[in-house]
Amino acid sequence: MSVVKRLPRYYRYLGGLLERGVTRISSKELSKLMDITASQIRQDLNNFGCFGQQGYGYNVEMLKDEIAKILGLTRVYKLVIIGAGNLGQALASNGRFARRGFEFTGLFDIDPALVGKEVHGLKIMHIDQLESFLTENKTDIAVFTLPGGNAQHAVDTVLSSGVKGIWNFTNLDLNGTGDIKIQSVHLTDSLITLTYMLNEKNL
Amino acid sequence: MSVVKRLPRYYRYLGGLLERGVTRISSKELSKLMDITASQIRQDLNNFGCFGQQGYGYNVEMLKDEIAKILGLTRVYKLVIIGAGNLGQALASNGRFARRGFEFTGLFDIDPALVGKEVHGLKIMHIDQLESFLTENKTDIAVFTLPGGNAQHAVDTVLSSGVKGIWNFTNLDLNGTGDIKIQSVHLTDSLITLTYMLNEKNL
Repeated sequence: MSVVKRLPRYYRYLGGLLERGVTRISSKELSKLMDITASQIRQDLNNFGCFGQQGYGYNVEMLKDEIAKILGLTRVYKLVIIGAGNLGQALASNGRFARRGFEFTGLFDIDPALVGKEVHGLKIMHIDQLESFLTENKTDIAVFTLPGGNAQHAVDTVLSSGVKGIWNFTNLDLNGTGDIKIQSVHLTDSLITLTYMLNEKNL
Repeated sequence: MSVVKRLPRYYRYLGGLLERGVTRISSKELSKLMDITASQIRQDLNNFGCFGQQGYGYNVEMLKDEIAKILGLTRVYKLVIIGAGNLGQALASNGRFARRGFEFTGLFDIDPALVGKEVHGLKIMHIDQLESFLTENKTDIAVFTLPGGNAQHAVDTVLSSGVKGIWNFTNLDLNGTGDIKIQSVHLTDSLITLTYMLNEKNL
């Protein structure tokens, strides 16, 4: 898993290099940029069949494409957002995801004050429409930006609809939900890790 | 670091238990809930001087308070948000942080269309005011929700102002910035990890 954890970061850095017009890079240069040892980089990339050339290094675009394949980024993913509060709307409006092939196709909320409002070209639908929407529109990933207390019912709906992944922003871990893959972003955990780091020397 | 990584999660679960009125819990029950072995839990908590009592288990509130101390959550932190787009506004509006002692005191952006707008009681200020604001208002943490390309100048301003931590949402890692502590949330990395998991069986 640890190589896999580093792959999205490689992908991000290679994308940044391409944007700056860098077409080739040595493991040494990449090492300096990413603060990983050059030998670790060579080992990671060899693992996935990506070999640099002596005296040339890596072709940035080819390497990025190769990693994109490994990460499953060679197709478009359809996502629905469950919970159209500030965070849900922020994700729906963020163009960065679309550029990576993530397409938000539906935005749902329980709050009548939000239903019907348009966000980045998507009309917020009532959560009661989620099940029929998922039946009619093949969806890869459900983004959970609703309060944790309301999440379980949505998990059940999503599970029975063939959605394969949940990107979870609730304060629950949503464990034990069978075959579905779950990736969580626990914002408060992250912020609390920072306060721990700020206080570390005082312990 | 790995125990530390688990501490925010312990803290979150203990908070959840208290909200549901649970006042004591055994390592076995906590183990089931959190999907960690009971012996790992006992070891983690012993490390920090938190011992359960035979036949009683842990007092949930005392354990939570103890972990809060270790995590530095016994005081209020002042935060400014740099970048008042959708994500910055979403964070500023999220009451969850205030309940944990995180107080957003300033919200900054470069976009004249946003400056002056009020978000959750905070008036968005122009980024040019950041330096003087930080001089006049002691600030613990700067939240970076601006585009990565604009981040370096803000890092410099923040560094020279005595801010101790950066909570980073840009696509840069913001490495090598000296004594300041940085905790990053790379949303695209997280989503890409999920697509990897969805495709894993096909490799």
